Amino acid sequence: MRLGWLVDKLGGTLHGSPDLLITGLSPLASAAQGDLSFLSHPQYIAQLDSSQAACVIVSPAHEAQAQRRGPCISTANPYAYWARTTQLWKSQLLAAQPHTEPLVHPSAVVHPSAQVHASVQIGPLCVVEEGAVIGAGTCLKSRVTVSAGCRIGENCILHAGVVIGADGFGFAPEDQQWIKIEQLGAVRIGNDVEIGANTCIDRGAIADTVIEDGVKLDNLIQIGHNVHVGAHTAMAGCVGVAGSTHIGAHCTIGGGAVVLGHLTLVDGVHVSAASVVTHSLQKPGQYTGVFPIDDNKTWHKNAASLKQLNALRERIKLLEAGQSKQRS
Amino acid sequence: MRLGWLVDKLGGTLHGSPDLLITGLSPLASAAQGDLSFLSHPQYIAQLDSSQAACVIVSPAHEAQAQRRGPCISTANPYAYWARTTQLWKSQLLAAQPHTEPLVHPSAVVHPSAQVHASVQIGPLCVVEEGAVIGAGTCLKSRVTVSAGCRIGENCILHAGVVIGADGFGFAPEDQQWIKIEQLGAVRIGNDVEIGANTCIDRGAIADTVIEDGVKLDNLIQIGHNVHVGAHTAMAGCVGVAGSTHIGAHCTIGGGAVVLGHLTLVDGVHVSAASVVTHSLQKPGQYTGVFPIDDNKTWHKNAASLKQLNALRERIKLLEAGQSKQRS
Amino acid sequence: MRLGWLVDKLGGTLHGSPDLLITGLSPLASAAQGDLSFLSHPQYIAQLDSSQAACVIVSPAHEAQAQRRGPCISTANPYAYWARTTQLWKSQLLAAQPHTEPLVHPSAVVHPSAQVHASVQIGPLCVVEEGAVIGAGTCLKSRVTVSAGCRIGENCILHAGVVIGADGFGFAPEDQQWIKIEQLGAVRIGNDVEIGANTCIDRGAIADTVIEDGVKLDNLIQIGHNVHVGAHTAMAGCVGVAGSTHIGAHCTIGGGAVVLGHLTLVDGVHVSAASVVTHSLQKPGQYTGVFPIDDNKTWHKNAASLKQLNALRERIKLLEAGQSKQRS
Repeated sequence: MRLGWLVDKLGGTLHGSPDLLITGLSPLASAAQGDLSFLSHPQYIAQLDSSQAACVIVSPAHEAQAQRRGPCISTANPYAYWARTTQLWKSQLLAAQPHTEPLVHPSAVVHPSAQVHASVQIGPLCVVEEGAVIGAGTCLKSRVTVSAGCRIGENCILHAGVVIGADGFGFAPEDQQWIKIEQLGAVRIGNDVEIGANTCIDRGAIADTVIEDGVKLDNLIQIGHNVHVGAHTAMAGCVGVAGSTHIGAHCTIGGGAVVLGHLTLVDGVHVSAASVVTHSLQKPGQYTGVFPIDDNKTWHKNAASLKQLNALRERIKLLEAGQSKQRS
Repeated sequence: MRLGWLVDKLGGTLHGSPDLLITGLSPLASAAQGDLSFLSHPQYIAQLDSSQAACVIVSPAHEAQAQRRGPCISTANPYAYWARTTQLWKSQLLAAQPHTEPLVHPSAVVHPSAQVHASVQIGPLCVVEEGAVIGAGTCLKSRVTVSAGCRIGENCILHAGVVIGADGFGFAPEDQQWIKIEQLGAVRIGNDVEIGANTCIDRGAIADTVIEDGVKLDNLIQIGHNVHVGAHTAMAGCVGVAGSTHIGAHCTIGGGAVVLGHLTLVDGVHVSAASVVTHSLQKPGQYTGVFPIDDNKTWHKNAASLKQLNALRERIKLLEAGQSKQRS
Repeated sequence: MRLGWLVDKLGGTLHGSPDLLITGLSPLASAAQGDLSFLSHPQYIAQLDSSQAACVIVSPAHEAQAQRRGPCISTANPYAYWARTTQLWKSQLLAAQPHTEPLVHPSAVVHPSAQVHASVQIGPLCVVEEGAVIGAGTCLKSRVTVSAGCRIGENCILHAGVVIGADGFGFAPEDQQWIKIEQLGAVRIGNDVEIGANTCIDRGAIADTVIEDGVKLDNLIQIGHNVHVGAHTAMAGCVGVAGSTHIGAHCTIGGGAVVLGHLTLVDGVHVSAASVVTHSLQKPGQYTGVFPIDDNKTWHKNAASLKQLNALRERIKLLEAGQSKQRS
């Protein structure tokens, strides 16, 4: 990959020879000769001077320092530039090894009534059930299930083991038993959505479960029935979102967080990893609720005190009353 | 669906014309003309008067109010009635589109020694291993694995990606390494059990892991080896139950909760979402243990204080001693 | 299984007839006549005298007591001896039922460019993508995916639904959208690794995600991109490890724990179940961070007080100041 070709494709200002050949991509610290690297976070600035990288993508603020080291590309958002570089890199790798396999792997089970755009890629051992709709440019990796009537937009990626449209968890109690509520809705997924391995999105009870454009879900996430996830929201691994919760656009949910059902999270809410959202969050901002980890002995002491916290509060009240009495 | 036909099937008292045609099912708030709806929770009572629904299923307590609005069906448990209505609705939908597919999809891999009742439905790309037994009326959706020797009862539903009977997590430490303990038991599942997508139930070490009748498990749940789940217990998504724990009947475990191993939860225990059960729970009731979520700044302050909680308790003791000394 | 044959294979000192036939394996409490059992934890010593077991594996410390009861095998590590006994038992069971199935199930989809050792066992409906490498003696149970270019060592077991090498979760934010960072690394797994059902290990962004020899992972675990798990570390079910975290050797991570990204856990760190690791742990030892579970009412009171904890701390400070003033 010539630097000149890269800058023609992606823009930015190149300081250095356009004929310089890039033979690999690498972080600053481990970059070898021939590697292209990037500096996106000031935290890594100390690694810039000593990096062996052939060229570094930097923001205008670090352009001068980078130039003293050697070739660089200056651009407003080095991390996004880097992301696009990885995309070019991968497409070149793929072009080098001509794919002769059919877009739909012969082992996939696609119902004749499913509407699958001619450009869709369906990997080995996937299942696409009756009436499902899959938009142009979408890719199902291996062993994905898209259940009956569910709709996936364009340019989505569904990783191995994903299950779209299993029944939501709906039962009515009667005589100490559970009566199944048939889940008559489906799942509707927008464009440019990526869904991680073994993640599950349940079909709605009556209306559909909805995932809007540009949403990114990591692995092993559970999205309950009738959840609505707003555009460009991202969730890290192992998150669980219970039924009928409405999550706004441009939110982030940290790994292992749990969001209870029937709540509303407005646009721009950020939930820290492993936090449990028990009530609606009506203001944008960062929210956290995690028991701080400690060495086991210290934790034991604090956890024991925690179980008496309300009693301690009463004792403080008594002390305050005593002191004010002594004062008067 | 004629209202008269519905009441003939499910009982209840119809106020309105039995010839009224129902063309859809919907919650009160979004119901359109022709829709059947229901009122099960007093919280939604305000939606009753303004609902566009053709007919509403209500309890006797709300019968009079519902009648002032229009047609209604009165029944002791409107939510269970609604559940049964969804079942009738779905069976009518299915009857309308004649299924010509075989019960066992040709892509499923069923071992010749497995005992699968003639009425069992096995979806695409399922695996049923040797000696497995599957009872009448049970349905395996796509990509389910039932491992060797495991037994599934009658009228169960196993959703896509379920794994029954993978090895339990058993290793003996020796010389800082782990020696595998072969898992010689199996999994035994009762009747009317539903198991959500990508949920895993491990085989027992020697005796079997047991799931009793009527248990409902949501998606992405982990049930360790030799766990016993009592009849009609329900667990929401992402729950983990460690090995050899005995959970009673009629329990509910909220989403994302973790139950440690070798514990006993008696019948009628209810664990709130995301709580961690670290000791046996010998009395029925609701149990909770979750760090309250807060804006990040407030959480930081409280979490920092929490790490000194035991020290604060000591300071309160000192204050109390000081005050009682001053008093005397 | 003759006792004499067992001791010939595994060593230990037999007190009793070598011709005694073992017809089953069982824990002490439930052992029937003919069963072999073991005593590894002093907690179960009360069960020894009354056990119906034909023979008990014990440590030298319990040899005398066990002999008073009947036949026993004395060995330094009874639990590891038991583990090896289960392995012999299983191999005998398998020998009794001759397997005529091919090592690679015909329904598996193995790319022609994958390097799969002749001794590898690949179960039904697995996917092994191009350029993947799988070492001698490794077993993929049903429905496992090994993605392009990933390498699995020798004598590993991958349970049903495992996904090795899905894309890591990498996106650069730009104009409130997410730009995909192609994941150009792979996954490299050592020898003697066991991976539980539906567990996911993501491919690295540039360098590889690495799992060293002897690691044992339970079900439904998420390992992010560029994580490094040191040799003989074990993780229980539902653990999530975020990207670029380095976990040392001989660690244990309890079920449902979450480890944030870009952290270092040194060798010999033990994290309790459901704890959240938010900073690096530089010393070996046991770490915990879990909100203690309580009856719901008590929890409510303590949780409410917890939200004022920092304010309580300020009030204690004021009280202390007041008391010291009164004293002076």
